[in-house]
Amino acid sequence: MSNQGLLVIAPHPDDETLAAGGTIALCAAAGLPVTILTVAAHMPPLYSEAVHQQTVAEARRAHGILGVTDSQFLDLPAVYVSEQPVAELNGAIAAVVEKVRPTVVLCPYPDRHVDHRAIFDAAMVATRPVGAGAGIKLLAAFETLSETHWNAPHIEPNFTPNWVVDVTTTIERKLEALACYESQIPAFPGPRSIEAVRALAMFRGTQSGFAYGEGFHIIRMTASADILTGALRPGAS
Amino acid sequence: MSNQGLLVIAPHPDDETLAAGGTIALCAAAGLPVTILTVAAHMPPLYSEAVHQQTVAEARRAHGILGVTDSQFLDLPAVYVSEQPVAELNGAIAAVVEKVRPTVVLCPYPDRHVDHRAIFDAAMVATRPVGAGAGIKLLAAFETLSETHWNAPHIEPNFTPNWVVDVTTTIERKLEALACYESQIPAFPGPRSIEAVRALAMFRGTQSGFAYGEGFHIIRMTASADILTGALRPGAS
Amino acid sequence: MSNQGLLVIAPHPDDETLAAGGTIALCAAAGLPVTILTVAAHMPPLYSEAVHQQTVAEARRAHGILGVTDSQFLDLPAVYVSEQPVAELNGAIAAVVEKVRPTVVLCPYPDRHVDHRAIFDAAMVATRPVGAGAGIKLLAAFETLSETHWNAPHIEPNFTPNWVVDVTTTIERKLEALACYESQIPAFPGPRSIEAVRALAMFRGTQSGFAYGEGFHIIRMTASADILTGALRPGAS
Amino acid sequence: MSNQGLLVIAPHPDDETLAAGGTIALCAAAGLPVTILTVAAHMPPLYSEAVHQQTVAEARRAHGILGVTDSQFLDLPAVYVSEQPVAELNGAIAAVVEKVRPTVVLCPYPDRHVDHRAIFDAAMVATRPVGAGAGIKLLAAFETLSETHWNAPHIEPNFTPNWVVDVTTTIERKLEALACYESQIPAFPGPRSIEAVRALAMFRGTQSGFAYGEGFHIIRMTASADILTGALRPGAS
Amino acid sequence: MSNQGLLVIAPHPDDETLAAGGTIALCAAAGLPVTILTVAAHMPPLYSEAVHQQTVAEARRAHGILGVTDSQFLDLPAVYVSEQPVAELNGAIAAVVEKVRPTVVLCPYPDRHVDHRAIFDAAMVATRPVGAGAGIKLLAAFETLSETHWNAPHIEPNFTPNWVVDVTTTIERKLEALACYESQIPAFPGPRSIEAVRALAMFRGTQSGFAYGEGFHIIRMTASADILTGALRPGAS
Amino acid sequence: MSNQGLLVIAPHPDDETLAAGGTIALCAAAGLPVTILTVAAHMPPLYSEAVHQQTVAEARRAHGILGVTDSQFLDLPAVYVSEQPVAELNGAIAAVVEKVRPTVVLCPYPDRHVDHRAIFDAAMVATRPVGAGAGIKLLAAFETLSETHWNAPHIEPNFTPNWVVDVTTTIERKLEALACYESQIPAFPGPRSIEAVRALAMFRGTQSGFAYGEGFHIIRMTASADILTGALRPGAS
Repeated sequence: MSNQGLLVIAPHPDDETLAAGGTIALCAAAGLPVTILTVAAHMPPLYSEAVHQQTVAEARRAHGILGVTDSQFLDLPAVYVSEQPVAELNGAIAAVVEKVRPTVVLCPYPDRHVDHRAIFDAAMVATRPVGAGAGIKLLAAFETLSETHWNAPHIEPNFTPNWVVDVTTTIERKLEALACYESQIPAFPGPRSIEAVRALAMFRGTQSGFAYGEGFHIIRMTASADILTGALRPGAS
Repeated sequence: MSNQGLLVIAPHPDDETLAAGGTIALCAAAGLPVTILTVAAHMPPLYSEAVHQQTVAEARRAHGILGVTDSQFLDLPAVYVSEQPVAELNGAIAAVVEKVRPTVVLCPYPDRHVDHRAIFDAAMVATRPVGAGAGIKLLAAFETLSETHWNAPHIEPNFTPNWVVDVTTTIERKLEALACYESQIPAFPGPRSIEAVRALAMFRGTQSGFAYGEGFHIIRMTASADILTGALRPGAS
Repeated sequence: MSNQGLLVIAPHPDDETLAAGGTIALCAAAGLPVTILTVAAHMPPLYSEAVHQQTVAEARRAHGILGVTDSQFLDLPAVYVSEQPVAELNGAIAAVVEKVRPTVVLCPYPDRHVDHRAIFDAAMVATRPVGAGAGIKLLAAFETLSETHWNAPHIEPNFTPNWVVDVTTTIERKLEALACYESQIPAFPGPRSIEAVRALAMFRGTQSGFAYGEGFHIIRMTASADILTGALRPGAS
Repeated sequence: MSNQGLLVIAPHPDDETLAAGGTIALCAAAGLPVTILTVAAHMPPLYSEAVHQQTVAEARRAHGILGVTDSQFLDLPAVYVSEQPVAELNGAIAAVVEKVRPTVVLCPYPDRHVDHRAIFDAAMVATRPVGAGAGIKLLAAFETLSETHWNAPHIEPNFTPNWVVDVTTTIERKLEALACYESQIPAFPGPRSIEAVRALAMFRGTQSGFAYGEGFHIIRMTASADILTGALRPGAS
Repeated sequence: MSNQGLLVIAPHPDDETLAAGGTIALCAAAGLPVTILTVAAHMPPLYSEAVHQQTVAEARRAHGILGVTDSQFLDLPAVYVSEQPVAELNGAIAAVVEKVRPTVVLCPYPDRHVDHRAIFDAAMVATRPVGAGAGIKLLAAFETLSETHWNAPHIEPNFTPNWVVDVTTTIERKLEALACYESQIPAFPGPRSIEAVRALAMFRGTQSGFAYGEGFHIIRMTASADILTGALRPGAS
Repeated sequence: MSNQGLLVIAPHPDDETLAAGGTIALCAAAGLPVTILTVAAHMPPLYSEAVHQQTVAEARRAHGILGVTDSQFLDLPAVYVSEQPVAELNGAIAAVVEKVRPTVVLCPYPDRHVDHRAIFDAAMVATRPVGAGAGIKLLAAFETLSETHWNAPHIEPNFTPNWVVDVTTTIERKLEALACYESQIPAFPGPRSIEAVRALAMFRGTQSGFAYGEGFHIIRMTASADILTGALRPGAS
């Protein structure tokens, strides 16, 4: 049976909306199954259980607004993801890929947050083009404001998108979902403020031929060119 | 009116088949319009007019085998492309993009052949995401045996594919088309021999989950994720 | 005699404002001499003389708003800069550096516009750390919307700023100056629209600890660390 | 006493043959001492002891076919190498370098297998140009099918060889040795199938002027140019 | 209250002098507060307590010669820094940044010494442009002889300075301070010998327009251009 | 007939000595044929014929000291090399490679001097691994003080050597040869002063395990590992 649907691997609650909320909403609106796997949680030892519960509740509200069909939480403690044995973290994420069998996977870019790096590594192993991974048509890394751009320029990898999705029709829905994360989103000029998120979308979009965009770094695509052509899909937008 | 079809910008006759013959055959078999724009020709001052005619005839035979719908030749003299004023070369290629209005464009990787570099530059200008370029969903650079891998490692850009197309069903057709280029294709172990081309396809394919592949470097994609998942949905329009 | 002041080397009218208008206004407000050298002009053969005159007039108005002290125009024809013999272009720019003797030089990033590349090359030669160049404390390349981000990702150099200037106090002045370029600045969602320029400034700023910023790529700095700490010391001379 | 001979640091049994079997066979045929240090083993907790014994037996058979003079096994558990304290792993590998005192060292490229990365790091420390390391004339990283090419393009380092060894005379011996690893080598189109290994060798060779090659990334060479010249070695091939 | 002064984060005793002694002496001579945070120590398990005490005493003598105002030691065991939980190492370094509130921070380049990498990572987190970090005007990585240049060329990041400080007036003081580290500094041609350090300074300096220099890789600068200009600081050199 | 000997492609008189004088002297002392091809000349229009004659005479004296067996001069005007049609420059350099049939080729790194870039490009074409090029065992780019390190950091390629030759026994001879270039070599702290050249050699050497070194960037090596091993060459150092 062939793979289908979108899987977004989010390090912490809010990353999926911050980075890919517009794309998620587009896919959901098109009737595709969308799964969000949130790997780490704002839980003890660094956070209280109350904060944990709040962020999960915020995530569920945000996912509802975006039209997510399946929300999964691995509940590893934030900032301690890299202390897990590699084989165990890899195994946990691989099990989800095996079960969901997605066509498109979005994972974090390996940036300044140590959890993002550990989860990027695990996602890379879980999506290798063998077994369930062979059915993935597109694997891409997303841009997370206030972490991705804090990598050291020209020492660590620096995000430059090679894929920008037109989210002009879903940007307001994305910002509405983001506003659910009251515990995470600061006021302007905070680096993850609503204004900053809108500005990034406008920057990515206007450099790509439209108003608002979300940028991604394609890691591996195996889709055939004929899928992308309008001629095969009469009436497709 | 929205863009549609595939445009391959080939520096010289045989590059389109060598680099993307399997992908071209896939698209043609799917009923898509495929245009090949061959920019330079093996013509005077470096080649005789007889060689010129022979290579054009070989190209037309190869294109026929692959199912190409439109073959265009700009007829600039090989190895002298970079002597053209930049504005003129850009204009000539932009005019074709404007007329064809493709969804997917494949251009040469900027490698050791000076013509490939000049044509890469011109293609980058002609496909900017404005005007006709805004309708292009995917722009990618292709791999040309015996030029792409002669770039200086770690000084010049080195080809690493982020898109591999499964050409298992069209690899034999590609090699049949390539064999038309009797004037260009040497015997094994020549760097563009039939055996070398098959070996590269097997290497790219087996590292991507299938038997034979063609590798590309995606420069800009604006396709939405739902196109990739939608096309695989049962009953998708 | 030691160098002093800021020199901005703009490929075409509007680039200086688009890329560095906020920084220019900051320096001018601090009483520093600011020179803009505009290298190319929208003139024949690609443009009419009327357009040429209009863009120069627009530039002079914009420079006035920003507080520029010296506006120089080399008047090379746009898109034909790279057809100049290298020695002549280098000489023309070096002569300006020799005369102005700046402390800080801002030049274009080598991006998708062929003129930007040729002028980057010439600026690199003119600012070598010998002769007048030895007095330059900081050389940096600027970001030009709708050209810098059209370089091919991961093939050509991709802009990542290592210097962001807080232009929160001058962003409105910058946008006012930019609005003078009626012939160059399109409506939103155009890639050089006022909205796009504001969005980029907000993105750069919020990732750097403030509201609005202009990003640069530092090429060579020879300032001593005590200048940076000394200037902030209470009672510093 | 000066160093001599070849040391190959293999992460797991089969990597040495997969990546460098042809080069090993060339050196062995020339009468040079060749040591294979296999660092990790397919052992508990991830594998059974029976698998462990089988892979060691397969390695010994393969080494015999290639003409290896010394086979050493560190027996760290696979996928758990990076859990070792860095000082201990470094010490274990450095001790071998100290004892073998090789002239040429081949180590894994830091790729998608976490063990490969940890062993690359340890090898880099063990071969620093001090002490026994000062006698090493050439240190290079090898290419391991189905791991090296699964690094994320343009985020992680991507393998591009700057050294290709002509293994036309030993390719069949290499494939014969590889066939010993019945537990590791899948059927075509498996990414480590015999056919895939032959295809890579043909691709590397034909782009370098011969039929079959093995590619390496030179990390540090201190050999003098006069060693490479034919004039000093009458009768050398 | 605004930040002021220089903070140098040294992995081990001697790194601060080796890499930045001339710059430290310049700042101290200008009357600026200079803090050295030495993170790791040559202590058990790899070193005896006697060695530990000796290196601390050497460091204090060297700091005295350079004019350092504050010497802090975190006393983590050398080569075991990366075994610390990430959150704890980050917290320890962040606490110092919070207390010192520097304007300029110098940290190690992520090179061949595993401690340097762990401390680079922690320094990057501690200096993010939020909270106390928002007051930092300049963050740069320094060059440590016999570790920085042992990174694998073109696989790991390779040091190329974009900031060179003229230390012609303080090079002799730097070498005098370095000579205090009798336990660490070998005789020529040792890679950290006095002669090697002088040679590097002469190389960096002469390529930048002066006699002796110290090279740095700027990671993030937020200083405004007007700080760098002579016009604002009458009498400044 | 197999290739033999060393070919150094120098852009201008003095580059061969500045960059590779120690290596040239080592090869010459070992009895190998060494050819220097000097491509450009300090001649009209930028220089007088008297300067031209002086630099050629200086080159011949320097070559004599180093033991060069064959000195060839192409006599293209300096700074105008890139104005030559590409096919002609390529042809002129390829003809020399064809005639000399070297085993090792050293060419300029593509740095801040436009002539160096044009000659690098032509050398890359002339040494492709076909025809006479297939006999070249090693192609490497050399480091030219005061041009190579003036490339823009992290925008243009930055020199990091992966091959360092121990020139401890020939450094004095190199400096003696360099001193012949009275018209080209400035006093300290000039960027090409004798002191700067010695400092670079000491820096490269001490980081590689010896006193003085010359660094190169290996572009393509096809030598077999057995050539490098001492065991095959009894009595070899």
